[in-house]
Amino acid sequence: MKKLINNPDNVVNEMFEGFLLANKNKVKRIGEINAAARKNVPIKDKVGILIGGGSGHEPMFLELIGKGMADVVVIGDVFAAPPSTAILEATKAANSGKGVLYIYNNYMGDNLNFGMASDLAQMEGINVETVRVWDDVASAPLDRIEERRGIAGVLFIIKIAAAIAETGADLQKVKSTAEEARDNIRSIGVALTSATIPSTGKTTFNIAEDEMEIGMGLHGEPGVKRVKLVAAKETAVTMSEQILQDLPFEKGDEVSVLVNGLGSTTRMELLIMYNELDKILKEKQIKVYDVEIGSYCTTQEMAGCSFTLMKLNDKLKELYKNKADSPGYRFCGK
Amino acid sequence: MKKLINNPDNVVNEMFEGFLLANKNKVKRIGEINAAARKNVPIKDKVGILIGGGSGHEPMFLELIGKGMADVVVIGDVFAAPPSTAILEATKAANSGKGVLYIYNNYMGDNLNFGMASDLAQMEGINVETVRVWDDVASAPLDRIEERRGIAGVLFIIKIAAAIAETGADLQKVKSTAEEARDNIRSIGVALTSATIPSTGKTTFNIAEDEMEIGMGLHGEPGVKRVKLVAAKETAVTMSEQILQDLPFEKGDEVSVLVNGLGSTTRMELLIMYNELDKILKEKQIKVYDVEIGSYCTTQEMAGCSFTLMKLNDKLKELYKNKADSPGYRFCGK
Repeated sequence: MKKLINNPDNVVNEMFEGFLLANKNKVKRIGEINAAARKNVPIKDKVGILIGGGSGHEPMFLELIGKGMADVVVIGDVFAAPPSTAILEATKAANSGKGVLYIYNNYMGDNLNFGMASDLAQMEGINVETVRVWDDVASAPLDRIEERRGIAGVLFIIKIAAAIAETGADLQKVKSTAEEARDNIRSIGVALTSATIPSTGKTTFNIAEDEMEIGMGLHGEPGVKRVKLVAAKETAVTMSEQILQDLPFEKGDEVSVLVNGLGSTTRMELLIMYNELDKILKEKQIKVYDVEIGSYCTTQEMAGCSFTLMKLNDKLKELYKNKADSPGYRFCGK
Repeated sequence: MKKLINNPDNVVNEMFEGFLLANKNKVKRIGEINAAARKNVPIKDKVGILIGGGSGHEPMFLELIGKGMADVVVIGDVFAAPPSTAILEATKAANSGKGVLYIYNNYMGDNLNFGMASDLAQMEGINVETVRVWDDVASAPLDRIEERRGIAGVLFIIKIAAAIAETGADLQKVKSTAEEARDNIRSIGVALTSATIPSTGKTTFNIAEDEMEIGMGLHGEPGVKRVKLVAAKETAVTMSEQILQDLPFEKGDEVSVLVNGLGSTTRMELLIMYNELDKILKEKQIKVYDVEIGSYCTTQEMAGCSFTLMKLNDKLKELYKNKADSPGYRFCGK
């Protein structure tokens, strides 16, 4: 393992310190835990947006707090949910009195710890609502959508939730709008290589030199199928088929697209993949409103990418235009 | 080589097509060449900022056009300078009558082709000035600074040049301001692995599993020294020593920092590296004004990173605050 680190068992703490220092004018630490908030949190008359999850997927979630993005983030160890006590403390910091919306990806550990924190917070009189993200179509069939995992689609959900929260909407409205975004989103990933866990120096799974896995999860969870490595065109066709038929996305729909790199895949490849996806969407007469290309939800140095499509309506489109200014994702407005 | 591509000999064309499609509302192609401009170029009463160089370093240079960034970009094949005929055509597109400033990294092929294009453009009555970037302290001693290579520091120079150009400044003023930025910038890189050239499937150089090269160039050019892989702390100390003594940066100076990933190095590692750099700068009593962390100037999937410091004065600081909105680099203002 060749990584620019110090003590492999301390990577999360040192990363967190680096994050606080690099953004010292914009973010502050909450207590003594690995949680951070925008400087001006709690924000008067605004629902607090709290995000979090395991580390190792940077910039997600750590670097997604800022204006037009989340207010507070709580991180766990690499690929491990944050502890419920930390989430509770972060919830208190996020609450201006208007309640707090949790947005996180649907994994067992996160569900457990965020669920417990939510219960505890409510016992202390804080209104908490939750939107679990389950955008990965590869992880369970449609009729068991609530068993699906969350992957890169959470980026768009945070952006939409933050935009509606900034209008002063109440907690129920912010929650239902975030759900509306989630329910219009579908994603799928493809992995070409594994990733190295800093603390062990070991890769998370094995994959042959001539193989790729369609639908593989962020931590190496099994996907739809393992196939021989094929060209970008064929890969894009297979991936888009899975998501297009699932919502389904249909002729005349308008979408925002995210082509997300998993770690070591170059922007050159992501652009080539988008070139293929654009052709497919054109052929299906699906209109592209906006495209984001970048490595926003990663798995260490894993090679591969994911496609995310969000079907827009007038309301989501208007909210999508909102400026977002976080260290890990910036959108200067549209 | 596991890459998401189609024909390895056509990666640049397909990447360029994908870029045009993904940004169809913001950029346009120039003629039939691999050059693109912001939609509203040429911009009345504004010096045109033209950038370019070899492909394979994305988002640099391709994705650095937009408001507050460059106006026009011309790209060559992977690691190869763009042809002078293409640069000439792009120059014509960039010129509103107020002249064009070329900003590119100091490599022999680029110097030759941009130099020729500049001569040809001037014969056609277009005022062209040039700022070559030579921020890499590892590539030649200070007394031969003009032989140094350009690396990630060019990002800050483009940003500063665009900001002064937007004020309506004339070509000489834009040039001298870009030079002022360059002359206050120093960078150094460290490489842990090589990178794969798509067309050959081969890596550009060899480096042992337990080695790293301090000061290695973007294409595998030799650096200051090859050493055993050490911890982030020790690496940061060695790298910062090289740049701090060179300008030199001194007690009381104020700087903007760029911690740039070379391709497959995670943001977790970049944040850990910044954590170390911040401590060093504090100890030297050098004040940090702003920090950018990301993979802006890459070498395919190379592992490693570079540090760039720009010493600020009141003028550069004011210009630095300007908004920048390009597909590959966004800065929402300060």
